[in-house]
Amino acid sequence: MTTTIPTPPSPTGHGYISDKDRYLARLKRIEGQGRGIHRMVDEDAYCIDILTQISAVTAALENVALGLLDDHLKHCVTAAIRYGDGRAEAKIKEASDAIARLVKS
Amino acid sequence: MTTTIPTPPSPTGHGYISDKDRYLARLKRIEGQGRGIHRMVDEDAYCIDILTQISAVTAALENVALGLLDDHLKHCVTAAIRYGDGRAEAKIKEASDAIARLVKS
Amino acid sequence: MTTTIPTPPSPTGHGYISDKDRYLARLKRIEGQGRGIHRMVDEDAYCIDILTQISAVTAALENVALGLLDDHLKHCVTAAIRYGDGRAEAKIKEASDAIARLVKS
Amino acid sequence: MTTTIPTPPSPTGHGYISDKDRYLARLKRIEGQGRGIHRMVDEDAYCIDILTQISAVTAALENVALGLLDDHLKHCVTAAIRYGDGRAEAKIKEASDAIARLVKS
Repeated sequence: MTTTIPTPPSPTGHGYISDKDRYLARLKRIEGQGRGIHRMVDEDAYCIDILTQISAVTAALENVALGLLDDHLKHCVTAAIRYGDGRAEAKIKEASDAIARLVKS
Repeated sequence: MTTTIPTPPSPTGHGYISDKDRYLARLKRIEGQGRGIHRMVDEDAYCIDILTQISAVTAALENVALGLLDDHLKHCVTAAIRYGDGRAEAKIKEASDAIARLVKS
Repeated sequence: MTTTIPTPPSPTGHGYISDKDRYLARLKRIEGQGRGIHRMVDEDAYCIDILTQISAVTAALENVALGLLDDHLKHCVTAAIRYGDGRAEAKIKEASDAIARLVKS
Repeated sequence: MTTTIPTPPSPTGHGYISDKDRYLARLKRIEGQGRGIHRMVDEDAYCIDILTQISAVTAALENVALGLLDDHLKHCVTAAIRYGDGRAEAKIKEASDAIARLVKS
């Protein structure tokens, strides 16, 4: 009789691998925006325009974080709960702490 | 009789020039942290560690924004109010809109 | 042979019941602070003092939300994943959407 | 010869008096929403619905704060700068600190 217990996901992958290229492209774009802010300050751009750019980068980073968190809940936290290896509670506490940092930052 | 009306600040400088080097250094550090996030995703770092790093960058950017905004109120907005050239109201509306974007981002 | 499958939590309780009294006490305090803001505006209190009070209420509400979210992950989401009744994905999406609203509000 | 120097605003009014009724109405509505959150927890409402309500109250409070801050810049800070009584710098620092608390809360 074959086991129906699913194998846990590979410990080397952290779950968001499928979208990795998309995350990397978004982060490259954010890096470019970050360099743009540096250039704006260096060239004495108008304060308000710099603030607008900072708000855009902050919002873009938050969206990346929310995407990674959703992936984390779907993969790491789900696996910890499903395979019941006693790490579920610690995983949820860790995720809640990360959510609190995001909400307060 | 000499005039006591102060001359408005130079239109090319946007007020934060005195701290410019410090802003540029902070933004360089933030850029480095941004590249670090890209590398972490590329190397399949643990989700929670990436989220911690994103919260740090977001908080650092917010602090830069708050510093620039304080400078903006002290210089541009103050000048617009003091020289009473009819732009004060528009300047305050512009600043309030930028504050709203920061609070909501 | 007895089953080792745990029974799902009661559908009427939503998991945070154990701390309910504490949540209710915190919310009562927040309501009092809310009435205080109304009174401050009514009595022409100094703007900055009202803003300080609003920041305090907002932070207190966020902490209640983070506590409820942690409870939700520990109970509802964990149960949905553990009893594998096909609702786990929907539960996680719902939680992620709520997290995004908190981060953006 | 009549003086053209404008009189400073009354020290008892804090500038937002014109919109006071509107602010009071908005705060009354927010208080009602606050009581609604208490009732939802008391009646074991679904966590996610409570979180949605908390996000709504938080956003409503933030909008009140942004309105009060705009009024404060337009009236108190503008008066402090215009009448050049040496309090301008302290007023701006105070406003910047309040903005920082809003952004970080």
